[in-house]
Amino acid sequence: MVDAIETLIDEVRLLYHRAVQVAEDLHRQEPVTVGMRAVLEFLDHQGPAAVPHIARSRLVSRQHIQTLVNALRRLKLVETRPNPAHRRSSLVELTDDGRRLINRMRNREADRLAGARLTPTRSELLRAARTLRDLRAALGDVQ
Amino acid sequence: MVDAIETLIDEVRLLYHRAVQVAEDLHRQEPVTVGMRAVLEFLDHQGPAAVPHIARSRLVSRQHIQTLVNALRRLKLVETRPNPAHRRSSLVELTDDGRRLINRMRNREADRLAGARLTPTRSELLRAARTLRDLRAALGDVQ
Repeated sequence: MVDAIETLIDEVRLLYHRAVQVAEDLHRQEPVTVGMRAVLEFLDHQGPAAVPHIARSRLVSRQHIQTLVNALRRLKLVETRPNPAHRRSSLVELTDDGRRLINRMRNREADRLAGARLTPTRSELLRAARTLRDLRAALGDVQ
Repeated sequence: MVDAIETLIDEVRLLYHRAVQVAEDLHRQEPVTVGMRAVLEFLDHQGPAAVPHIARSRLVSRQHIQTLVNALRRLKLVETRPNPAHRRSSLVELTDDGRRLINRMRNREADRLAGARLTPTRSELLRAARTLRDLRAALGDVQ
């Protein structure tokens, strides 16, 4: 059983690194890193959010997200506004430029993936995603 | 289809971060990081190897592996010896201390995993690992 988990975690690590490589290669001409892209995508899916909330959802440190948000602000891809719920942590939201950029990146990724001759089927992909989620739950994450 | 890939890649990213968190927490008292642990495990599984070979197998930069190897050498967990195949890149191998450490870490991980109430079965885990490998192949990695 433990060997099966180790095999899976090892594939997770390799696919993670490969996905980062592909994304970096694909978006070479854009001013954002893979980490900054993840923040833009989060805001596009979830709407405006505070830094601590983004950090918790992404399982990374608050400081890490704050650094990414600062870089995105300098590029005018996100802006911050007062948070009605918490006076001390403002809400981060996409600017129009930020929304255009993340859409452009996602379209480029979709084109790249459509061009890959994919052996796993859609249902295999979703099944694997559920297994990964179950394993993450067993490791004490996921509510 | 693209949405299924995005769902899976997102789970990969989350499980990767969670696995790193769990490992850091579990081995807090050890002198090695998660990256250093991965190098020790690689050498334990594959035997002595040169830095460029480790880097290619792990899909990370040669410089990154060199930094980890330097840190492991300072701790006397690995040592280097001449490479009969390549005069310019020496072979890295585990010392006895390095082998003892990686075994201790893997036993601790096995205990932690055995204690998790696991919902995915062994065959689900291996099936997901195969799907991840297929996706990685479609993304142009895997020979």
